[in-house]
Amino acid sequence: MNYKQRIVVIGAGFGGLSFCKKIDKSKFDVTIVDRNNYHSFPPLFYQVASGGLEPASISFPLRREFRGKKMKGCRFNYGGVRTIDTGAKTVITEYETIPYDILIIAAGTTNNFFGIPDLQQRVCTLKSTSQAIRTRNEVLLRLERAAIEQNPDRRRRLLTFAVIGGGPTGVEIAGALGEMKRYIIKREYPSISPEEVNVILVEGSDRLLRTMSEASSEDALRDLRKLMVEVRLNKTMKSYDAEGLITFTDGETITADTVIWTAGVTAERFDFKNFMPGACPGGRLPVDEYNRVEGTDDIYAIGDISYHADEVWQKGCPQLAQVAIQQGECVAANLNNPDKSRPFSYNDKGSMATIGRNHAVVDLNKVHYSGWFAWITWMAVHLISLLGMRNKAVVLLNWIWSYFTFSSSLRLILRQSINPSSPVKN
Amino acid sequence: MNYKQRIVVIGAGFGGLSFCKKIDKSKFDVTIVDRNNYHSFPPLFYQVASGGLEPASISFPLRREFRGKKMKGCRFNYGGVRTIDTGAKTVITEYETIPYDILIIAAGTTNNFFGIPDLQQRVCTLKSTSQAIRTRNEVLLRLERAAIEQNPDRRRRLLTFAVIGGGPTGVEIAGALGEMKRYIIKREYPSISPEEVNVILVEGSDRLLRTMSEASSEDALRDLRKLMVEVRLNKTMKSYDAEGLITFTDGETITADTVIWTAGVTAERFDFKNFMPGACPGGRLPVDEYNRVEGTDDIYAIGDISYHADEVWQKGCPQLAQVAIQQGECVAANLNNPDKSRPFSYNDKGSMATIGRNHAVVDLNKVHYSGWFAWITWMAVHLISLLGMRNKAVVLLNWIWSYFTFSSSLRLILRQSINPSSPVKN
Repeated sequence: MNYKQRIVVIGAGFGGLSFCKKIDKSKFDVTIVDRNNYHSFPPLFYQVASGGLEPASISFPLRREFRGKKMKGCRFNYGGVRTIDTGAKTVITEYETIPYDILIIAAGTTNNFFGIPDLQQRVCTLKSTSQAIRTRNEVLLRLERAAIEQNPDRRRRLLTFAVIGGGPTGVEIAGALGEMKRYIIKREYPSISPEEVNVILVEGSDRLLRTMSEASSEDALRDLRKLMVEVRLNKTMKSYDAEGLITFTDGETITADTVIWTAGVTAERFDFKNFMPGACPGGRLPVDEYNRVEGTDDIYAIGDISYHADEVWQKGCPQLAQVAIQQGECVAANLNNPDKSRPFSYNDKGSMATIGRNHAVVDLNKVHYSGWFAWITWMAVHLISLLGMRNKAVVLLNWIWSYFTFSSSLRLILRQSINPSSPVKN
Repeated sequence: MNYKQRIVVIGAGFGGLSFCKKIDKSKFDVTIVDRNNYHSFPPLFYQVASGGLEPASISFPLRREFRGKKMKGCRFNYGGVRTIDTGAKTVITEYETIPYDILIIAAGTTNNFFGIPDLQQRVCTLKSTSQAIRTRNEVLLRLERAAIEQNPDRRRRLLTFAVIGGGPTGVEIAGALGEMKRYIIKREYPSISPEEVNVILVEGSDRLLRTMSEASSEDALRDLRKLMVEVRLNKTMKSYDAEGLITFTDGETITADTVIWTAGVTAERFDFKNFMPGACPGGRLPVDEYNRVEGTDDIYAIGDISYHADEVWQKGCPQLAQVAIQQGECVAANLNNPDKSRPFSYNDKGSMATIGRNHAVVDLNKVHYSGWFAWITWMAVHLISLLGMRNKAVVLLNWIWSYFTFSSSLRLILRQSINPSSPVKN
């Protein structure tokens, strides 16, 4: 039997999985490592946070996925990657050292707190399933605390929810909180009046959704205002202190017990040994037209972590699922048939965001539309992209249920249980 | 308007909710306090732990429940109870002080570790939703770690799961782990052989399910052995150390990285001020025939936390959902119509336990049966008892799905996210 080159893929997101589906498992020995044992679906994290969906409905156990026809032959190793040693050609995870011949880095991004002191400890975030669950817990806890609080100052703080960042995630979570204010509070928290709840969306630039068309920005602004979300443009947060005081760069302040931070991402970091990647905006890894990390010949980067600039995308391809999927397919195809290698070019399929029930904004190439039909488009596209028939069915049923009941059963505050000290240590 | 007596109910379990449904809200002002914002369904915790069900499917947000007709008029206050001051007639929670005229204690039980050092930190438990989620995380984590472990000693430890306690919970979780060994490992963990997985069920007495009939004990033992669960009777655990060594009182030892502790419960404790409740087995509160806590005239205890002995149940009523439900109804009826007060007597509806797919044991009065029909009975009874149409539907669909696929999609290891320091402190 011939020696099979060993490919290690870091990250089982959109990019990593699309690569694994396409790569020829008869030619290569493929191992994928991830710090989670499931693939998750970031576009719907905000619905986990707002209690619309269960985490399991938008997650897919990798071991199940790897039983499927397209993935058969891939090995899954659980563990967070710590170090990439380009000299020894190994990836070192929290549990083991894995040798590679070809490395695919598809590890995505994490929150960027821009060095604001203590921000990470104080804000809620939405970059992983666990973070979304925690955000849900925090929001629900504030409502319960406010329901039994008599002091008006404390009530105001408990009921002020500031969302920082007016990109798709910020717009979507603000919309979901607006719906909660409008439909849930009145019925379920008799001691809270909906007017007491303040949802504030803060954006640093002069418009929401600034990666989308101006028409989308305007429609999103209008829809959010209908949901009684206060939108503040041209505002940049400077600090958030232990007393709940948010200070903006222009000196204005707001007091809020809950800050949901969606204002920026930065590439996942690894310790590189024997190699120093180039510097790119957002900590991304610069790649050439074949998605090879510049300065290496056996390491590729795909998805949000890679910085791929070409004539069309002079500031780099956007950090979207579609880019990651197409890059994964392109790199796999080039490795399968090195003679027919083709450079990567992103085929833009458009972008969209939803704002509460019945409203969304969609940009498809030069076409923009919004409202109910955009909302249906948004749902259809997200359902199709979701992994697994069971998840598709569960999410669809949940959406239908919530649509007609204006409600959701998924509002549990899950207190943490004590962590056992696992006897075996590596 | 007449003064309404204020009733405070501690705990929204089976007892607390059955009381709230029955009590006349036009006569009394009713507040229920609970440390969780949802009612949960302990008989199915083991399925959360084994990945068969999502926590939300067996939990019901209390605020939703309180919108319903039967509950209308009840107030829900979120918070864990710390102190009961019988002098001031107040209940002090982590957030507030609530005055009462009549107090209903329905707080249930928690794990009893019988003073074994460090046990609480080292074992997995199943007495709450969060504990069940943690148990699931720990079991899945062991499998992932074993899948990449080369050292045979470590593999053995990682793949040994000891369940301590042969009551219904112990039998059910051991059965679920046996099914995992039999159906899931082979298909999803190619680097683990099912024979490497050891599931050991340890019981201190000479039979499993000792509150049920002897026929049930025997059937359960046979069914567990079919699932390749090693059952050890007459064994009592003495210690469990940081190296994974379990020592029994007879000197025997087993090494296991995972111990699931179902060996005992003890009543939830409160600080009582101005009152000292009598001592009963398991820390339960002794009550008279009207479920009034002995030594008080305005405090009742119902459910697992109460110790109600009568001629039939000389060692106290069993700690079962049915007892709690009937006590709640009885106390409510007596308060609604004090002239027609009747002492409580438990109408035994039988008990049951399930062992993997297609198998259960059922005791109904003097009738015992087991096997497939018992399993159908078990499912029907649990579905009927589950709160909420949506939950019933979701659980039923999940069961049907798992039955035909021998699988489950709910196998996510949810890593904890950093806990933010909530700015507002009480």
